Amino acid sequence: MPEDIIKQSKDFPGWYQSIVQKAELADYSEVKGCMVIRPYGYALWENLQRDMDRRIKETGHENVYFPMLIPERLLRREADHVEGFAPECAVVTHAGGAKLEEPLVVRPTSETIINVTLAKWIQSYRDLPVLINQWANIIRWEMRPRLFLRTTEFLWQEGHTAHETKQEAEEETLKMLEVYREFAEEMMAVPVATGRKSDSEKFAGAVDTYCIEALVRDGKALQAGTSHFLGQNFAKAFNVQFQSREGKLEYAWQTSWGVSSRLIGAVIMAHGDDHGLMLPPRIAPVQVAVVPIGKSAAEQEAVAKEVAKIREELGAEVRLKVDDREQYSPGWKFNDWEMRGVPLRLEIGPRDVKQDQVVLVRRDTGQKESVGRAGLKAAVHDALDAVQKALYARALEFREQNTRELDDYEKMKAALQEDRPGFVRTFWCGDAACEEKVKEDTKATIRVIPFDQPAECGKCIACGKDGKELVLFAKAY
Amino acid sequence: MPEDIIKQSKDFPGWYQSIVQKAELADYSEVKGCMVIRPYGYALWENLQRDMDRRIKETGHENVYFPMLIPERLLRREADHVEGFAPECAVVTHAGGAKLEEPLVVRPTSETIINVTLAKWIQSYRDLPVLINQWANIIRWEMRPRLFLRTTEFLWQEGHTAHETKQEAEEETLKMLEVYREFAEEMMAVPVATGRKSDSEKFAGAVDTYCIEALVRDGKALQAGTSHFLGQNFAKAFNVQFQSREGKLEYAWQTSWGVSSRLIGAVIMAHGDDHGLMLPPRIAPVQVAVVPIGKSAAEQEAVAKEVAKIREELGAEVRLKVDDREQYSPGWKFNDWEMRGVPLRLEIGPRDVKQDQVVLVRRDTGQKESVGRAGLKAAVHDALDAVQKALYARALEFREQNTRELDDYEKMKAALQEDRPGFVRTFWCGDAACEEKVKEDTKATIRVIPFDQPAECGKCIACGKDGKELVLFAKAY
Repeated sequence: MPEDIIKQSKDFPGWYQSIVQKAELADYSEVKGCMVIRPYGYALWENLQRDMDRRIKETGHENVYFPMLIPERLLRREADHVEGFAPECAVVTHAGGAKLEEPLVVRPTSETIINVTLAKWIQSYRDLPVLINQWANIIRWEMRPRLFLRTTEFLWQEGHTAHETKQEAEEETLKMLEVYREFAEEMMAVPVATGRKSDSEKFAGAVDTYCIEALVRDGKALQAGTSHFLGQNFAKAFNVQFQSREGKLEYAWQTSWGVSSRLIGAVIMAHGDDHGLMLPPRIAPVQVAVVPIGKSAAEQEAVAKEVAKIREELGAEVRLKVDDREQYSPGWKFNDWEMRGVPLRLEIGPRDVKQDQVVLVRRDTGQKESVGRAGLKAAVHDALDAVQKALYARALEFREQNTRELDDYEKMKAALQEDRPGFVRTFWCGDAACEEKVKEDTKATIRVIPFDQPAECGKCIACGKDGKELVLFAKAY
Repeated sequence: MPEDIIKQSKDFPGWYQSIVQKAELADYSEVKGCMVIRPYGYALWENLQRDMDRRIKETGHENVYFPMLIPERLLRREADHVEGFAPECAVVTHAGGAKLEEPLVVRPTSETIINVTLAKWIQSYRDLPVLINQWANIIRWEMRPRLFLRTTEFLWQEGHTAHETKQEAEEETLKMLEVYREFAEEMMAVPVATGRKSDSEKFAGAVDTYCIEALVRDGKALQAGTSHFLGQNFAKAFNVQFQSREGKLEYAWQTSWGVSSRLIGAVIMAHGDDHGLMLPPRIAPVQVAVVPIGKSAAEQEAVAKEVAKIREELGAEVRLKVDDREQYSPGWKFNDWEMRGVPLRLEIGPRDVKQDQVVLVRRDTGQKESVGRAGLKAAVHDALDAVQKALYARALEFREQNTRELDDYEKMKAALQEDRPGFVRTFWCGDAACEEKVKEDTKATIRVIPFDQPAECGKCIACGKDGKELVLFAKAY
């Protein structure tokens, strides 16, 4: 048996930390808050990245790369932006053996260094829209780091766009939010709530921040992607102006949007169980683990021959791993692949070879099935599809079971104190003081103001005055 | 006409700088020495990266990601390594609003941060080999930056491996050098000399450094990739030990190897001419530029219809760009795509539509050919193959014409003072003082000690004593 992991049902944070390390997704490093992403974790990231990159390009964006070091003076040009990010910055003060004349900040996000360049590139409406994206590493100093979820250094993509009109920029903001929603649901099998952030939770420098918000298995919310409508805030700070179709000088309208290696944390927390990870087939680094069984040399040889054929048949179509490690028993390997969240396991022993069949086991349901060799390829494809769908359905059901509509403050306080606090759907008057009161009393915040609003609002959950908006409260990562 | 670029034949450095910016590959940034890689340049990098990543994975390596920030004390553990890299380091001294207890260096390369982790991962010979790679950004402070060739921040891949035996590590070092050579020749169409570096040119901390070395069109050498045999130097400094098959505690044998965004500089300099870039089809972001021609609205419509069909037919197979910009004339566009180095241009006007043909123009030879529409697809594929081969042949011929075998010091000095100094093949006694003398007299260094050595050596070019090795001298980037 592989070493035991902590049970999710007993200690969620302990489970998370142990599974990330036992499954060899990531490890702590010598530098507080920074992580080492191991091959299995990085392969998961590459699968997410490849598909997201395709979606970003299909919506007309091109990849670029801007410098990681940003002169401090640039950060200061947008007042809200520097206020929000300066406390989290790492600062290079020495380089090339000497003290720098001007300190350089390691990018906590790239609006500033990109806009100072856009001001050079953009002259006329003909230069618009600018639709660019970069894959990069980011540093934001973290006091309470947690692997993948909050690390001082993380990997992400950041899209930055500039447009002629406000409307175009707003449409872009929502288009990319929709790309993120589809990605989370189709690839990660994680249903997400979408909508706007309240002012207190929005990006430093944005006019509006929109987000996708998942609910993970301890009943907490996890922000999994954000899309910002920046208005003309950065364009004014960096003088990004263009000659309009009417010949007037105007400031560009902008957006920025990003998802990060935090998505890996979302996948782990949205699907895992007491036995370990449970990875959606579309992003799993290994989709099918093949475990050969056999005692005598003759048995092992017969099985190995059949396994070679299976690898030949399926290897080009699915991500398949044959586990021929000699030092472990089949039972140990079953548990190991279960812990690593591989969607399907194929068991094949001498009897299976004789009967021209293999045993197919699903990670999500534990369902075991003997499949005739002739039908194996179809069965594997069907089962991978079925697992992908089942994971989404399970996560959706979980979210529905853990979303409550409440209009009573005491009931909400009680609900948010439960083991699985979940989402609370309720009304809010729009006053930041009410939001703050809920946070103080319950540690929950407004995660998202959904796009779908009712025709009429009830009373504000906190102050009892007329509500302005339906909101989702939750405790969050 | 697009703005004129500086002529390569008149002013090579000026040509390089102007073409990089005019073709919108990269731009200078607000931070001295750091560059902005623009969409066209980044697409070129992605094409290089995708293929290199495939080759790295096919040779058994897995991708990972290690922290960018390295505690200074780790850098100090390997004496040669810190001596070589400390002067180029950028140092983070403040973060999260406070002074750090320990300064953190931004990675100039990752041997140190990786080895401190490998010491944890590696216990037994069963944990070996470790074969990992990462794609990352690197900072080495540059006093005389040049876009792509020498920038303070650059992008690269760095492979790091650990093995049971010296022989295995040596084989790995040479295997990856061979991967680099094949890549340079097959993808970049750049012939490269391979071999060992002299001690004065080797990686700080390595036992032996091997490299691929290109000769570019001003007759200077350009190091395009390195592969290091590290021996047990880092294993000893970081205590990377394992229980051997014989039950003894041994230090691991290691390698590291890398190529960087400098490859883009090599492609530009190895193939470009007075008219601009000349990109090998296999890595060109745009392989075929289609320029529609037509004056009246009716002509334009007929041509646009045909162009749409061509895009439909070829778009999925080749990277094709239809240039329908209204503000430019066809002649302007021809020059523009020529300057951007696109391997093939398709011109199509109303007469071509009537005659059921298009005009195909090669960037490298300027050769124009009318091709019947039915044969277009095959003609495009053939022409792309032909350009790829022709660029390699042209670069190889150039290198041969600019490589001289000399055994007279004065002749070598004169040769290296010419406009196109090229490679000088000659003998060396192995004494660092002779190498230094040549450098002082000519600015040339030993670029590589080729694997292919003659049975007998001539006299050392510098001191006249018995030569030990055949070497290639050149001035270098």
